[in-house]
Amino acid sequence: MILEVAILNIIPGQEDAFLKAFSEAKAIISKMAGYVSHQLKRCVENASRFILLVEWEKLSDHTEGFRGSKEYQEWKRLLHHFYDPFPTVEHYEIC
Amino acid sequence: MILEVAILNIIPGQEDAFLKAFSEAKAIISKMAGYVSHQLKRCVENASRFILLVEWEKLSDHTEGFRGSKEYQEWKRLLHHFYDPFPTVEHYEIC
Repeated sequence: MILEVAILNIIPGQEDAFLKAFSEAKAIISKMAGYVSHQLKRCVENASRFILLVEWEKLSDHTEGFRGSKEYQEWKRLLHHFYDPFPTVEHYEIC
Repeated sequence: MILEVAILNIIPGQEDAFLKAFSEAKAIISKMAGYVSHQLKRCVENASRFILLVEWEKLSDHTEGFRGSKEYQEWKRLLHHFYDPFPTVEHYEIC
């Protein structure tokens, strides 16, 4: 099991639009091969910041399967214009 | 429910000692009032980086209860010398 971690900084003022777009986008990721679960949470200290945690069965389900899919193009279209700066995504595993 | 998020950068070469210290420290946090669960995971892209996710019943269980406790002094003694830089800890909630 791999945990994808992305801290998402949203352009101030666009938080509600981001949340609306994410409610559409989550249906995309939830259907991908190797997807296990996700959580999107909002930062208490900075209301323009969110954390996206996605559990995948294995690393390549995200890095190759999802990012290489046609569905990812739709995910990007829905979400990527909200980010400033563009997030660094990392993966974490059991230690 | 509040999710505490800390990205922990460990001084290179001290990762195993950190993990050993954490195995002792987790017994401290697990007994605190308001503690729900925790996960410590290791970064795939950077083996000196870990993420600590702790679920608390409410924000003050961490910021006041744990950080104000005598047990936190022991947590600090066990763990804080491994970090470089010292981590920024944030809290996230359902959105």
